[in-house]
Amino acid sequence: MPVLLVSPGRMLAYAAMATARGDRGLTDVPGFRVGHASDPRGLTGCTVILCGDGAVPGIDVRGLATGLRDPGPCDPGHLVPAIHALLLSGGSAYGLDAAAGVMTYLEERRIGFRLRQAVVPIVPAAILFDLSVGDHRARPTPSMARRACLNASSLAVPQGNVGAGTGATVGKLHGMARAMKAGLGSASARRGPLVVGALAVVNAWGDVMDPSTGRILAGLRDAPRGTLRVGAAAVLKGGGPPRGFRRRGSVPSSTTLGVVATNARLTKVDATAVARLAQVAYARCISPVGTRYDGDVIFCLSRGSVRADSLRVGMLAIDAMQEAIIGAALAARGVAGLPAARDLDDI
Amino acid sequence: MPVLLVSPGRMLAYAAMATARGDRGLTDVPGFRVGHASDPRGLTGCTVILCGDGAVPGIDVRGLATGLRDPGPCDPGHLVPAIHALLLSGGSAYGLDAAAGVMTYLEERRIGFRLRQAVVPIVPAAILFDLSVGDHRARPTPSMARRACLNASSLAVPQGNVGAGTGATVGKLHGMARAMKAGLGSASARRGPLVVGALAVVNAWGDVMDPSTGRILAGLRDAPRGTLRVGAAAVLKGGGPPRGFRRRGSVPSSTTLGVVATNARLTKVDATAVARLAQVAYARCISPVGTRYDGDVIFCLSRGSVRADSLRVGMLAIDAMQEAIIGAALAARGVAGLPAARDLDDI
Repeated sequence: MPVLLVSPGRMLAYAAMATARGDRGLTDVPGFRVGHASDPRGLTGCTVILCGDGAVPGIDVRGLATGLRDPGPCDPGHLVPAIHALLLSGGSAYGLDAAAGVMTYLEERRIGFRLRQAVVPIVPAAILFDLSVGDHRARPTPSMARRACLNASSLAVPQGNVGAGTGATVGKLHGMARAMKAGLGSASARRGPLVVGALAVVNAWGDVMDPSTGRILAGLRDAPRGTLRVGAAAVLKGGGPPRGFRRRGSVPSSTTLGVVATNARLTKVDATAVARLAQVAYARCISPVGTRYDGDVIFCLSRGSVRADSLRVGMLAIDAMQEAIIGAALAARGVAGLPAARDLDDI
Repeated sequence: MPVLLVSPGRMLAYAAMATARGDRGLTDVPGFRVGHASDPRGLTGCTVILCGDGAVPGIDVRGLATGLRDPGPCDPGHLVPAIHALLLSGGSAYGLDAAAGVMTYLEERRIGFRLRQAVVPIVPAAILFDLSVGDHRARPTPSMARRACLNASSLAVPQGNVGAGTGATVGKLHGMARAMKAGLGSASARRGPLVVGALAVVNAWGDVMDPSTGRILAGLRDAPRGTLRVGAAAVLKGGGPPRGFRRRGSVPSSTTLGVVATNARLTKVDATAVARLAQVAYARCISPVGTRYDGDVIFCLSRGSVRADSLRVGMLAIDAMQEAIIGAALAARGVAGLPAARDLDDI
């Protein structure tokens, strides 16, 4: 986790805690590699999680505006027992195409589900809407996703405006004018041999808050050039958008994409339960969350042999996911006229 | 909401706020009546929510140990457009029988789905496991549920050890010996003409906490006669139960049953979205929540003509549900050797 140059206080505490224990993020879990490809001009990008020769998946969808490709293998009843990579992408539904680049990369390396001569890499993908920042024609392509694969490593996960988080924003009740920049975050939690890593791309319609204080880190501002975070929940309760929001005809759909990885040996049923539990982190750090403007989803990936109950894994997943979400807000940098937390909080 | 005789501090603040604004709970929503029937010796009971000539329902299930009867009509695609009552019952799966008493009560009054001569009252039901306190042979029956219907009123909802909350307990990671008593709570939130009421029966496997402070109000204690709430999440992360929990062969299944009612005119799709959003209150007030030992479910009932976006209704539902959950912990009284929050917090 990069050192954040923040002012004293809670925000520093998070970064300091993570740095002190040498938290690399999701890549702290053995066997997983993370790679980004970013388009800092078009403001889009994608992030791939490579799972070696396969990871047991689970999924939990809570948003009502999801964009998914091949989520089937995450179902406990699905024929395919494992997945080989996961792609998180900007570009809205167009970004689903990019998964082809990951498949080609894996096919060339003979990684996938084997059927006689053929190898079929299993690569679920989830997208987020970032067409309303930067160039709306800039969208992750198969070649960009291939680049993300080539960039993949087990080093500390770069955070902020990278990969699928390049164009991520939050606080969009009044459209983009009063939104803020967020991005991608990653963190891990460890107890003895058990490691649980999390990665979050925070493009929420609502605000990101610190659950320990209730303070809003990034979200809806009072005015287009305002610095006051007014609280999306309060605005909604008072009868603010989304009515006008809809009438204006601009619905910048949103999404928080999350991945939890662990070296615990889990079944698909276990992995689904862990993905489900990790949603608690969304509920505590994002407000509102899981709306019909959000495509919120969490994947769980298990690869390892550590014996641990799924509930224990889930509790650590909540911690790691909370830290990843907060990291996504704190590591982001302002772009395209949208300030990030560090621009407003005297950093 | 009854006045709680509590020591100074946050807990008082909740009760005082509710009392000050004349909060009756779910019955603040016009057209809904709530009735309890309680067996304070057997430690079980049931609670009915009567919906007049019908309410548009929604449901969201997050627990993995649910016990439901006739949830079908809550599905947006189901033929039946409205339900006539909702039953929350103790008695584990046996308690599902009790719904027959509600159906008979409504049939006699010609309330239901009409098919020529016949009237079929639609009464979804959800149960919780309370057989491990009091007399395990004491279970809500159709006649008890009928009594709940006869007790139904639009007065302030009695809270604590009443109705389905009579045998409700929390903090059961080490079985019943270190658990605490909780119960039933109800609250409402209002903005102009829009009213959202909530009712929660808190029989969680985990702890109940105040999200504004993180303080545990009721939950797992340090020892059978202990008064220290050690934090179920911390115990789980440290590798505590559930392994031993399962080995012991005693799995006191748990559940938080929730109902949100509103005078907003909602479709079934809207009502489902509101039930979904209200789960945020569970995530913030209960830890762990939605485990495979919990049958957590939230129903939403719409009956009225107020125009309001489902997201706005959902945000108020979160507030009301949080207060209902906290009320369920604070209004409960200790029984059967299990202390309640008020027994340990110098009340």
